Amino acid sequence: MTSPAPALVLGGDGYIGWPLALALATTDRHRAVTIVDNGARRRLVAACGGASVTPILPLEARVELARSVFGLPNLHAVALDITTEGLDALVAEARPGLVVHLAQQCSAPYSMAGLEEALYTLHNNEGGNLRVLWALRRWAPEAHLLKLGTFGEYAKAGIDVAEGYFRPTYNGRTADRDMPYPRESDDFYHASKINDSNYISIACRKWGLRVTDVMQSTIFGVDTPLTRAAPGLVTRFDACGMWGTVVNRFITQTVLGQAMTVYGSGLQRTGLMALADSVASLAQLAGQPPARGVHRVVNHVTERSWCVLEIAEAVQAVAEAQGFSARIDRGGYDPRGEDVAEKATHAVEAHYVASEVAHTPFAEALAPLFARVAAYRDGVDPACLAPRVSWAP
Amino acid sequence: MTSPAPALVLGGDGYIGWPLALALATTDRHRAVTIVDNGARRRLVAACGGASVTPILPLEARVELARSVFGLPNLHAVALDITTEGLDALVAEARPGLVVHLAQQCSAPYSMAGLEEALYTLHNNEGGNLRVLWALRRWAPEAHLLKLGTFGEYAKAGIDVAEGYFRPTYNGRTADRDMPYPRESDDFYHASKINDSNYISIACRKWGLRVTDVMQSTIFGVDTPLTRAAPGLVTRFDACGMWGTVVNRFITQTVLGQAMTVYGSGLQRTGLMALADSVASLAQLAGQPPARGVHRVVNHVTERSWCVLEIAEAVQAVAEAQGFSARIDRGGYDPRGEDVAEKATHAVEAHYVASEVAHTPFAEALAPLFARVAAYRDGVDPACLAPRVSWAP
Repeated sequence: MTSPAPALVLGGDGYIGWPLALALATTDRHRAVTIVDNGARRRLVAACGGASVTPILPLEARVELARSVFGLPNLHAVALDITTEGLDALVAEARPGLVVHLAQQCSAPYSMAGLEEALYTLHNNEGGNLRVLWALRRWAPEAHLLKLGTFGEYAKAGIDVAEGYFRPTYNGRTADRDMPYPRESDDFYHASKINDSNYISIACRKWGLRVTDVMQSTIFGVDTPLTRAAPGLVTRFDACGMWGTVVNRFITQTVLGQAMTVYGSGLQRTGLMALADSVASLAQLAGQPPARGVHRVVNHVTERSWCVLEIAEAVQAVAEAQGFSARIDRGGYDPRGEDVAEKATHAVEAHYVASEVAHTPFAEALAPLFARVAAYRDGVDPACLAPRVSWAP
Repeated sequence: MTSPAPALVLGGDGYIGWPLALALATTDRHRAVTIVDNGARRRLVAACGGASVTPILPLEARVELARSVFGLPNLHAVALDITTEGLDALVAEARPGLVVHLAQQCSAPYSMAGLEEALYTLHNNEGGNLRVLWALRRWAPEAHLLKLGTFGEYAKAGIDVAEGYFRPTYNGRTADRDMPYPRESDDFYHASKINDSNYISIACRKWGLRVTDVMQSTIFGVDTPLTRAAPGLVTRFDACGMWGTVVNRFITQTVLGQAMTVYGSGLQRTGLMALADSVASLAQLAGQPPARGVHRVVNHVTERSWCVLEIAEAVQAVAEAQGFSARIDRGGYDPRGEDVAEKATHAVEAHYVASEVAHTPFAEALAPLFARVAAYRDGVDPACLAPRVSWAP
C-alpha cells in the first residue's frame, strides 16, 4: 500500500494551524504532515509588545512533544518563509496532495498601522499566496489547496451572503451565470484576503487548480480535543489590542478585572465559531477536495450574527455565573471609524449561509474559557489589551 | 495670484501618460506638471524583444522639445520608481493638488508569463498604488487622485455594468446601500487593478481621500492634437504580442502584410476608445475632483461592445478602402484559454454606462492610422506580433 501524498500546513505554528496540523496528522497516520512556518506570527506579536496568553513551546519542541504524546512519526516541521524561493523547492520535493494555507498576517489594525505594515501585509499575504499558486501549478496541480479567507471579505448590504458566487438581478435583468459576490473591506488586511480570492479564482479557471477558500468568521476559544492532551500542546491565544479577536479579548479583560471595551456603539456584527468547531470542520473539508478547476467557497460560521454588545453581555452573563465580576465599558472609543448605525441596519437583515459544521452553542463554548485563561493570567500585560491603531485620517 | 497646487503624472512617459501630461500642462500654464517615471515600460518592452513602433525620444529630450514647441516652462520630469521611498519624499515636497496615477505594468500576457512577472505586477502595481495612497494621506489629503483602472475589472454576466457600485436584488431582497459591482478577471494584471480598487475604496472611506477611478476600455490610435505638433512629440505605440492591444496590433499586422490573428472564435467582446478621446476626457476629469471621501468610478468607453472578429472586419474594410491588402487569420490559436461561446452570450446582453466623453466613431478614428503606422513600418520586427504567453496549465 502506498502512502497518500503528503500534506503541507503553511502557518502550522499559528492559532488555527497548530491544532489543525495535529488533527490532520492523527486522522491519517500514513500521511506525512509537514508544518511550514517562519515564526513570523511570534515575532510580529513580540515586536508589538505582546505575547500569547498561553505559553507556547518553540515549534520544534511542540512537534517533538506531539510526536511522543500521540505517536506521530508522520508529523514534521520546516522553518521556511513562503515568500522566498524555498517554497517552490519544497513543493517540488514534497509533491503534496494537500496544502493548507494559513501563513498570513491576520491583524486588521496591524495592516492599518503604517505604510511598512501595509506593505508587509501585501508582500506576505498576497505575495505568499501567489507563490503558492504558481508552485502548485508547476509541481502539484492535482493537490487540494485549502486556503483561509475571511467572512470579512464580503460586502454587507442587507441581502443574503452567498458562498462566493451568486446570480443577482439588476436593472430588470438577472445574471446569466454565477458572478463573484461583492467584496468590500474596511482595512488592508481584509482587502489582502479579497485580493487573494481574485488570484485564486484565476488559478482555478485558467490552470485547473482545485481550491477550497474558507470565509472564516471570528474564532474564539483555546482548546481542541487534541491540544488538551498535554499542557505543552496548547495553541497560542492572543488578547491584545493588535492581535486579539473580540471574544478572546473580552474574556481576558474580564479575567484580569478590566472592563470589556466595546468600540463605538457596539452594534457592529460578526459571525462566530469556536476554535474546536473550526478545526474539526477544516480537517473534514481537507478530505473533500473539489474537482479540478473549481474555486469552492465555504462560508465558515456557526453563530450567525452577533453584535459586539451582545457578545459582551453573553461573556458577562457566563462570567458572573462563575463568580467573576464582569463590566462593560461603552465609552464609545472607535478606533476603526465604523459607521455603526449603518452596520446595524444592514446586518440585521443578513442571512448567512452556513456550511454543515459541528456547532457548539456560544455560551457552552464560553464556559470553560474563564478558568483556562485565569490559569495563565500572570503572563498577560494588562496594558496591551487596549487598541493602539486608529483608522482615522 | 497664487499658482494652483502642482500636478504629478506618475507614468507620464507612457502611451497615455505622455499625451495626458501635455494636455494638463497646456490647459493651465500656471500649474507645474511633473512627469514621474522610472522608464520601466521602455525597459520591459525591450526585455521582451520589442520596441515602440513609433520612435520615441528619451524622456528628458521629449520634455525639452515640448517646453520649446509649446512654451511650457511648467512641464518637468523626474526619474523615480514609485515603489521606493522617494515617492513619499516627492509628495511631501510637491504637495500636489492632482496626482494622475498611470505608473503600472499594463500587460495581461506579461503578468501570466511566469512567477517573476506575476510578482513584479503585484509589487509594482499594487505596491505602488498602496504607496501613493499612504503618501497622499500623509502629505496631500486634499489632492485629487486620478487613477487608471480597467474595464476588465468587471465580471460580465449579461447584466448592466454599473459604474463601480450598484444595488442588486438577490433571493427576493434588494441591497439597502450601494455595493461594489462584482469584479472578476482572467489574468493577474487585471486582478492587480481590481485589487487596487479595493485599497482605494478603503482610503476614501477611512481616510477621506478623493479618487476618480477610471475603468478604461481598450484604447487604440497614436495621435492627439498636441502630439501631432512635432514628430518628436509622438507617443509610444506597441503592437507586439506582449504589449500591443488588439486594434493597434491588427493595424500593424495589416500594414506589414501579415494576416490579423484573431484568437479563439473571435467572439470575445471589448469596449473601445480612441487615444485622443481618452486623453481629452481624462484631462477633463482631472479638473473635476469628487468630494473628500468619495471613490468615484467612471466607465471610460465610447464604442460600447465590439467582438474581436468585428474589429478585424472593420480594420479590413478601412484598410482595403485605402488600398491595403487585409487578411484575417481565424486559425483558432487561443493563448488565453477563453471560453468564447460563454463570453459571446454574456456580452451581447451587456449595456455599458458610458461617461459623457468626446466620441470619434471607430471607422473615422481608424482611417488615418494606416498611413501613420506605415511611416514607421521599417522599425517593426515582424516576428514580435505573435502571442508568446499561454494561460493554459
